[in-house]
This record gives sequence, C-alpha cells and structure tokens, in this order.
Amino acid sequence: MSAIRFELIKQCRHTGARAGIVHTPHGEIPTPIFMPVGTQATVKTVMLRDLVEMGIPIILSNSYHLYLRPGHRLVEEAGGLHDFMRWPRAILTDSGGFQVFSLRGILKVKEEGVEFQSPHDGSRHFITPEKSMEIQNALGADIIMAFDECVANPATHEKAKKAVERTTRWAKRCLEAHQRTDQQALFGIVQGSLYSDLRQRSAQELVEMDFPGYASGGLSVGESKIEMCDMLEVTTPLLPQQKPRYLMGVGTPEDLMAAVMRGIDMFDCVMPTRNARHGSGFGPTGRVILKNAQYANDFTPIVQGCGCYACQNFTKAYVRHLLKSSESLGHTLLSLHNIYWLFDLMRGAREAIIEDRFPDFIAEKSEELALPAEVKSRLFATDLG
Amino acid sequence: MSAIRFELIKQCRHTGARAGIVHTPHGEIPTPIFMPVGTQATVKTVMLRDLVEMGIPIILSNSYHLYLRPGHRLVEEAGGLHDFMRWPRAILTDSGGFQVFSLRGILKVKEEGVEFQSPHDGSRHFITPEKSMEIQNALGADIIMAFDECVANPATHEKAKKAVERTTRWAKRCLEAHQRTDQQALFGIVQGSLYSDLRQRSAQELVEMDFPGYASGGLSVGESKIEMCDMLEVTTPLLPQQKPRYLMGVGTPEDLMAAVMRGIDMFDCVMPTRNARHGSGFGPTGRVILKNAQYANDFTPIVQGCGCYACQNFTKAYVRHLLKSSESLGHTLLSLHNIYWLFDLMRGAREAIIEDRFPDFIAEKSEELALPAEVKSRLFATDLG
Repeated sequence: MSAIRFELIKQCRHTGARAGIVHTPHGEIPTPIFMPVGTQATVKTVMLRDLVEMGIPIILSNSYHLYLRPGHRLVEEAGGLHDFMRWPRAILTDSGGFQVFSLRGILKVKEEGVEFQSPHDGSRHFITPEKSMEIQNALGADIIMAFDECVANPATHEKAKKAVERTTRWAKRCLEAHQRTDQQALFGIVQGSLYSDLRQRSAQELVEMDFPGYASGGLSVGESKIEMCDMLEVTTPLLPQQKPRYLMGVGTPEDLMAAVMRGIDMFDCVMPTRNARHGSGFGPTGRVILKNAQYANDFTPIVQGCGCYACQNFTKAYVRHLLKSSESLGHTLLSLHNIYWLFDLMRGAREAIIEDRFPDFIAEKSEELALPAEVKSRLFATDLG
Repeated sequence: MSAIRFELIKQCRHTGARAGIVHTPHGEIPTPIFMPVGTQATVKTVMLRDLVEMGIPIILSNSYHLYLRPGHRLVEEAGGLHDFMRWPRAILTDSGGFQVFSLRGILKVKEEGVEFQSPHDGSRHFITPEKSMEIQNALGADIIMAFDECVANPATHEKAKKAVERTTRWAKRCLEAHQRTDQQALFGIVQGSLYSDLRQRSAQELVEMDFPGYASGGLSVGESKIEMCDMLEVTTPLLPQQKPRYLMGVGTPEDLMAAVMRGIDMFDCVMPTRNARHGSGFGPTGRVILKNAQYANDFTPIVQGCGCYACQNFTKAYVRHLLKSSESLGHTLLSLHNIYWLFDLMRGAREAIIEDRFPDFIAEKSEELALPAEVKSRLFATDLG
C-alpha cells in the first residue's frame, strides 16, 4: 500500500487545472499547492511555527545537503527530519540528482551512479539510486524522489535521450531499493529536456512502473516560459489522472498559474526566500523592490490587502529600514510575505477550480502582471481543457 | 506628573535587593528586569511577537542609530517607535551619549554638544542635550535618558570630574528641553568613572534635580566586576528609594545578580543577541558553545529544564547544525534562549525577594558558575543589606 493517496476533487472544464488532496502520514495537502523549500532542514530566515500558523501543509528539504551536513544517519538518530527540525506536517525530499548535476563538484557519471566532491571539505562521495533511497529512507520524508540524471539546458537530442534512458533504469533501481513504501511515497521524475518525444517516452516508461506520483524535472532551467508550457502540454496527458503531478523548482506566480492550467498539482521553489534576501517582495505586477527610495516613508503594507503576517503588521517604510540596516528581520518578513503569496495564490486557484470560476481567477490574477501581452495570452489561454 | 510611577513592593533584609513595578504608559514592568536591546528598531534575528509571547514587558532602542537611520522624524511620522516596529509594550531609548563617545566618528566635544560623523555616509552631525531630547521626544519611548558625557576607562580624576560636571549641566538642559513629560519619563545618568567621590557627587547633583529615575552609566566598560560593584555600593545608597535604578549596558548573569544585590532594578545589554550570533548560549556554568563537536549528536536542549521556546523544542544537535550551516535560525533560537535566560533570572530573583529567600536564590544560581571562588564570594556576599 502506498504511503499517500491522491483524491481528485474537481477538474476545470476549460483548462487542465484540477483540485485535489494528497493524503499523507503527516496530514492532508490540498492541491494545487506551493511547497516552501527548507534546504538545510530549515526554511531560510523563518521559524517553522510561523509556517504552521500560515497553514502550510508541506515543506521540501534537500537530501544532497543533509547527506553532506549533518549526515542522514544523524538525522535518523534524531528521529528523522520531522523530529530534527520540529515540523509536524508533511515533508518532501528531493533525491539529490538535481544538486549533484547542477552544483559544482561533479567528478564522474557512470551507470552505477555519480561521483562528486563535497563543497564543504572536498571529500569524495558516490551517490547511486540505492544510496539516494538509503538517504531518503533515513530522513523519513512523506514523499521522496527518484534519483534522476539531469542534463544541462540546452542539450542535444542524443544526450537528452541517453539521460532519459538512464533515468528510467535508475527509477527502477530506486523502486527496488526503497525500503519504507508504507511510510514514504516514491515519485518518478520525467526528464527529456525540451524534446517532446523524449518527454513523452520518459513519462510512458515511468507510468508503466506505477509510481504513487510523478514529477517533471529538468524544467525552469533557462528555457522560456512558453517552452516550459509546451513540455507540460505533451507530458501531463500521459500521466494518470489519479496520481499527483509535481513540477520541480517552479517558480514565479505566472509559472505556477500556467502550470496549474496544464494539470500540475504541486510546486516548490527557493524563489520566495531567495527574493526576500534580495529585498524583493511579490506583488500584483510581479515584484516590489523594497529598497527603492520611493518607499522610505511609505506607511502602507508591502501589498495592500495581503493577508500575510508581514503585511498585516508592518509597513514598507519599516521593512525598507530593516533591509537598509542589514537586519535579518527584513528577510524574515519578506520571506513570510513571499511564501504566503505563492501559497495563497494556489489556495485561490484551488477555490476557483472547485467553484467553477478558474478562468476568471486566472484573468484577474494575471491582469496586472508585467509581462508582454503575447506571452500572457499564450501562457493563460483557457482553451487547454 | 511623571509618565511613570515606581511601586516598591519588597526589600530584601539581607542585601540591597528590592522588588517593584514600574508603571508606564505601555504597561507594567516588574523589577528587577532585564531589557533586551533593539538597536535599530528591531531585536536582532527575532520577531518582537516572540518576545511578547515570552512575557518581555520592555525593550530598549538606540536614539543614535535611529537618528542616523531612518531618522527620528520618519519614525515620528510612522506614529512613533511603538507603531513603527509594532511593539505594544514599553520602550526605553538611550540618549545617544554612549554611542557618540564610544563609536568611531567623534569630531569635537564642546560645552554646547558633540560633533560627530555618520559611519554610514560620513555626514557631519551635532548632538546637544536639546537635540537628544528632540530625537527622543520624536521616537516616543516611555523612558528616555539624559544626554551625558561618557569618558573612556581608565580616566584621570580630573577628566572624570569635568565629565561629571558637564553631565550635570547637560542633565539640567535635558530637563528643560524635554517636551513630553506626561508621556515619557526622563532618567538622569550618574557618571564618575571609578572614583567614589565623583560617583557620589554625580548622584547627589542629579537627585537634587528630581528625575523620575536614575541610571548608572560608564560602567561595564572594561573595569573588573569588583570595581563595578564598588561603584554601585557608593552610589545606590544616595538614590531615592522610591525611584527606579537602572544599570546601563550590563550584563552577564553574575553581573545582574551582583547588581540586584546592590539595589539595581533595571538592566540592558546586547550580550544575549551578540553571544547568540557567536554561537554561545547561557547555561548554569556560564556558557554553552554550541559549535563544539561534542554536541554534534547531543539530542538534549541547549539547557536541560530551561523553559524557553528553543529549549522546549529543539536539540543542541539541531542548533549546532544550523550554526554550522550559517542558517539565521540558529541565531534566532540562541537569541530567544539567551534573552529568556536573563529575563527568567531576574524573574526568579524577584520572586525570591518577594518570598524572603533571595540569599538562597543567589547561592543556588551562582553555585555552578565558572568564576574564581574569591570573585564569587565578593560579588555574592549577602551582608550588603
């Protein structure tokens, strides 16, 4: 029996959007959902209890980073990741594949696995599909990810094809190595770069293995928003309706909306916390750059009407002062705002789907976005159903 | 009528310790009290609501820093410091005297005031007693401080005497310039370096002016703990019983206990948050250095039995992981612990004073402290009553 169960509640009649619930050992996740990223067993600059208060049902953490520091066995000894960082709700860990392939330090890629060097102390490590499962089983997240081969963008068709084939073989090895299927659901990851035939082949091969959920990987790596949508459009129709679909590493409010329209249920991205550390808050047009001089004596919230703790309590003038003074509270407040913004956007999308007014919701939310008209009309076309 | 009222509740029969309440426009402050420092309109790395939850009734902020950035007029426009940083309880601001004299940038000291250079942009500024009152009236704290001349330690008797005389003259000018006596209580500051005669003279001259409260300044600037106690012993007997007494910039747990025994009611210090940023937590023996390798897999709290949020929820192993990973949550948790530690120490002292068991409390709390026996016996002698 799988550790999770996906309950499909409603499908949009005009787009591919859908509303559902992922039932996990640590609570229910209403979808579509944005999942904040807690790379090193903490979501940067915030206290997890503030995310509990916000209603966040799931956060993500990184196997690669936790394997290197403090070590997955130490986290296991602490009672697993939930206990270690005191997060009572669901957790998803990635496999380490993306980090191994995208961060500096890769030494050798073999069929067996990947050799790489630690950025902390230069020590050599070898991660295989089996090792990734060992790490993720020790961390104990509710949802874990298959170890995949990620190619850089752009990639030749030949190179992308080999990566897809290997990703399929590694996915099989992950399924076999995974030890805690009753507690942790393993998702397969569709690869294929920007080639429709490869994305389709990857999806078909993984679907045959019957994972409890499917992710699209290798997107949001430099391609255009339209290219990303193209890949989703060829992939999601091949994925089973009754399984959750997760788009990894995405993204901006417009990316999330466009992907929901194409049948995606789950998202994660470091953008909310990273933008916060750069002094940028999400807003109706895209961004509010809090350090701008125009906000020096602006005693209104980051975004008027926003329901987040930062906007309910503090002014742009104060947040700007904190940023100018290099006080971490500025990053904390902006992180809370940005996480809330994407979380609330997905909550709004879900309600709209359920209430049969999703196209109106998209029209409203995209109206003020500072994007070229032709991009907007392509991303938010509502004849995708 | 003064903005505050001090209610003396109980005096220790064996020492100079006393328990009281400072009634302010923003609530009651039970004394003795440790006040966390929020230099730039924020207590570093924590959210003020977490201090409200902890029960903290008053925090301190710095006129010097807020005058330079974002500017006292901007804070006034925001509705004052309480509104600007959303702190519903009492605030104390210092006068800027200590910062002007101790930070780099001083250009000229005249009878009129002090000329100094901003560390941010090199701009020149002139602070006088009247300017300090203007700034503090604009910030709107419940308790504000006179602008004093602070001499470096060591100072000659001649130099310290001139500073005492000037501090008295400036205190008079502050009293005259203070515009909001019904909302903000102005405290005088006793100076005199380490000279008993000067400390006594300073105290007598200020007491004649009838301030609503008195501080001891220019201590905890490099002198020994015993020298500091000597100065308190000659000063506090001259201060009126019915007014609160505040020891500025102090300090360690042992400093606080020793000063309470000598009749001090209020304390502030950046140590809890600064130590936190250096990975150090208060503990029964003095310090717990969280980065030490011995704590790597120590799944007990920072201090067993501590009632703070950090100790109630997290382990040394987790805090150590956060510090090793340069995650600000490590500083946040240690700051909460350290602030709680001093706050709770003073709360415990207060209860012990009220319940007539203060000497036992001191004996118990000082027992494990890593201090030379002769220093301990001098600091904590209980025949000071």
